[in-house]
Amino acid sequence: MRQRFSPDHYVTGILAGDRLLLSRAITLVESRRPDDQALAQQVLDAILPKTGQSVRIGITGVPGVGKSTFIEAFGTYLTTLGHRLAVLTVDPTSQRSGGSLLGDKTRMETLSMHPAAYIRPSPAGDSLGGVAHRTRESMLLCEAAGFDVILVETVGVGQSETVVHGMVDFFLLLMLAGAGDELQGMKRGIMELADALVITKADGDNQAPANRARVEYQNALHLFPPTDTGWFPPVLMCSALTSVGITGVWQTIQQQQQLTIQNGYRNRRRQHQQLAWFRSLLRQKIEGRFYDQPGIRDQLASIETQVQNGILLPAPAVDRLLNPLSDF
Amino acid sequence: MRQRFSPDHYVTGILAGDRLLLSRAITLVESRRPDDQALAQQVLDAILPKTGQSVRIGITGVPGVGKSTFIEAFGTYLTTLGHRLAVLTVDPTSQRSGGSLLGDKTRMETLSMHPAAYIRPSPAGDSLGGVAHRTRESMLLCEAAGFDVILVETVGVGQSETVVHGMVDFFLLLMLAGAGDELQGMKRGIMELADALVITKADGDNQAPANRARVEYQNALHLFPPTDTGWFPPVLMCSALTSVGITGVWQTIQQQQQLTIQNGYRNRRRQHQQLAWFRSLLRQKIEGRFYDQPGIRDQLASIETQVQNGILLPAPAVDRLLNPLSDF
Repeated sequence: MRQRFSPDHYVTGILAGDRLLLSRAITLVESRRPDDQALAQQVLDAILPKTGQSVRIGITGVPGVGKSTFIEAFGTYLTTLGHRLAVLTVDPTSQRSGGSLLGDKTRMETLSMHPAAYIRPSPAGDSLGGVAHRTRESMLLCEAAGFDVILVETVGVGQSETVVHGMVDFFLLLMLAGAGDELQGMKRGIMELADALVITKADGDNQAPANRARVEYQNALHLFPPTDTGWFPPVLMCSALTSVGITGVWQTIQQQQQLTIQNGYRNRRRQHQQLAWFRSLLRQKIEGRFYDQPGIRDQLASIETQVQNGILLPAPAVDRLLNPLSDF
Repeated sequence: MRQRFSPDHYVTGILAGDRLLLSRAITLVESRRPDDQALAQQVLDAILPKTGQSVRIGITGVPGVGKSTFIEAFGTYLTTLGHRLAVLTVDPTSQRSGGSLLGDKTRMETLSMHPAAYIRPSPAGDSLGGVAHRTRESMLLCEAAGFDVILVETVGVGQSETVVHGMVDFFLLLMLAGAGDELQGMKRGIMELADALVITKADGDNQAPANRARVEYQNALHLFPPTDTGWFPPVLMCSALTSVGITGVWQTIQQQQQLTIQNGYRNRRRQHQQLAWFRSLLRQKIEGRFYDQPGIRDQLASIETQVQNGILLPAPAVDRLLNPLSDF
């Protein structure tokens, strides 16, 4: 980062919708330098009262499902309705895949040029928890900058969907037609997190398979018990190519928002998310203190090998680690 | 507990298959007294080399699905094959429901009288984690006492299925016919943990609905990606009344065991379970040390309220708790 400003300078800029200062503030949030973190925290504390006014939407799906294309079409549609849209990416694999972030940027070219849209890929993170904390904070900064729809995008692998589900009001799962194979590579249980399923690429020859997949998924969703939201996740179809179904996705999100704002669920969901975020951070810090003790990691590795091989039971193993001077 | 013995006395008794000493050792494991815990640990350490030789089976299902009746029929069948069977119950609700444990005992009356069967309901626990640790240790004691099939039973509510899934080789989900309603009250995602689904009470007028439910669940299971075990969970039907299907359940378990022992998955699953058990215990102890500090719980409650209401961000909230003398 080339330059740092006073907290007030960031805050004033962000509240005025200055994208350059918004971007710099997010970079600050993502920085690991303690002084940057302290500065970022001051900015976050100051903008906090101006946050929470957006619709927070999580989007996931396996690679190849057409996430970027969908977001491009969906986002462009939202801007025509007068919405201001921020797109944040949570990609725990980006450290390895390297070029994927640039790839995303290129693919969402039209949207990224739009004055009412802001696209911010997260940098590679060494821990998903870390990425997630920064994404939550980036979301707050975007809200303070006046974006009223936030899309948080993640790839449908690993733990990232659960993490993203924990920071949004609506969780959208993109699926490909071709029943049987389409969940390949996707973590089990993700379908149950979804507030809606959208079958993408429902155009041309793919329309009939998409329709079959829709019925199949709708049946499968009926096997799950209803959630306590009063919302029943629908299965939709869309095509970014023909733009069919894009408006339906937005209508669905609005219906769910109306319902859950009215019945108090959205507020409870957010309160629950805040608390879970705090507890996860607290747990990380408490454990961090323990693991940062000199020599503890080597000792842990040796003890874990013994536990894994069934030579040592967990309880005495924990004692040995916590009370190195005890009898064990 | 009326009386305590030397560690050797317990160990010798357990290895000789003495049920009274087995029961007393489990009571010791379940005791919260530090001296009992130390004694229990000595016993556990000594019997550890004699454990691991059983088939560990988890059984769950919503109340009313007929778990006790199934276990009675299934367990009696196993004893006719010459197996020695231990049934352990993990019931996080037992503290509240009070009489349920006695109820279980009564319902499994025939089995509980059988010389080759041992039934042990867990006492009410204040934390599910705690119950689980004790159940794992009780399982080891039962193995050392020569039981070669261990059933760990849990009610299909809350977190207990995940916990039980984390300590067994085979996870059996009992279901009722009557598609659509039968997952009511069952935690989402449990179906994905199952190594087999069994539709109970498939007799009389219920046979046709059971058949329909079987097809429906088998279809639903096909939507999930295959696990890395090479095992595909089947949907079976059985009736404890007519005894139909009971042998099929045992054949299925044996097939899965053959497969997973051969391909190394069972061993990896157990190693993974041991490690997860250790890490969860370590985390509990590390966090316990933190929360046991004087005054910390009151402070935490007040901070959590502020976080939940969006007045305080998680990061400064954690700082405030961990560094009470800092600027915040």
